[in-house]
Amino acid sequence: MADEPRTRTQRKADVLELLSAKVADTWVATSDGDGPYLVPLTMAWFDDRIVLATARDAPTARNLVARGGARLALGGTRDVVMIDASLERTLPVADAGAVGEAYAAQSDWDPRTAGDGYVFLVLLPARVQAWREVNEIPGRTLMRDGAWLV
Amino acid sequence: MADEPRTRTQRKADVLELLSAKVADTWVATSDGDGPYLVPLTMAWFDDRIVLATARDAPTARNLVARGGARLALGGTRDVVMIDASLERTLPVADAGAVGEAYAAQSDWDPRTAGDGYVFLVLLPARVQAWREVNEIPGRTLMRDGAWLV
Repeated sequence: MADEPRTRTQRKADVLELLSAKVADTWVATSDGDGPYLVPLTMAWFDDRIVLATARDAPTARNLVARGGARLALGGTRDVVMIDASLERTLPVADAGAVGEAYAAQSDWDPRTAGDGYVFLVLLPARVQAWREVNEIPGRTLMRDGAWLV
Repeated sequence: MADEPRTRTQRKADVLELLSAKVADTWVATSDGDGPYLVPLTMAWFDDRIVLATARDAPTARNLVARGGARLALGGTRDVVMIDASLERTLPVADAGAVGEAYAAQSDWDPRTAGDGYVFLVLLPARVQAWREVNEIPGRTLMRDGAWLV
């Protein structure tokens, strides 16, 4: 309907609110040579980057280190924010400085206490899209090549 | 806590209920040679298969036809059903017989009216996992090699 209210995820401020929310869970798709991997992880938003924390030998970390790219989803299946991002750096949890502090402050767990097997993965977003249903996808790119369009 | 109720997604019957629910949305991860793709799609559950419907030239369809494998998620990020599945067959929407009827009955849209550009993708599940949070993942495999373990 023409007068239907715009969803919360169609403006940059709303996307940033979602990324910065306390305990922001995200679906993280990565891939290796054989196929896709997908798992939910809790993220933090710090310095315009997405920060994930996972075991160093978990498929998500291995795939990102080997291949660099992830596609993430936040929100519900009918009010979606999709983010294509690439791995910028990997940090040992015990030596992550401000990244570790930011993650622990936003999340409901502190990977800095999880031991040497865990790492922070810092991802740089390149493209952000938001839509409710498939007919809305055209025109719903909010970031392209790392630059906000809205 | 020891007396905490088991989540709905840890028994086969509960997984089947989720798969058979009216308008069952699922996150579908696929990959091509370059990296992962991820999008929410509405599925149907028919003849022990997951049925998706999408444009023939959409990344999900192209990746599945080229590489065969998908990893799907249903439920919330803290009450997850993860399914590894492979493409069994692709059906033109106008000639999909019982598959098309089942999809239209379970979903809130009817791809059979969407035109030649759309196809049904019939996926055979190979592995099903369910968990609430990461500490539960061990022992939460409900299907392996296409056979229910529970």
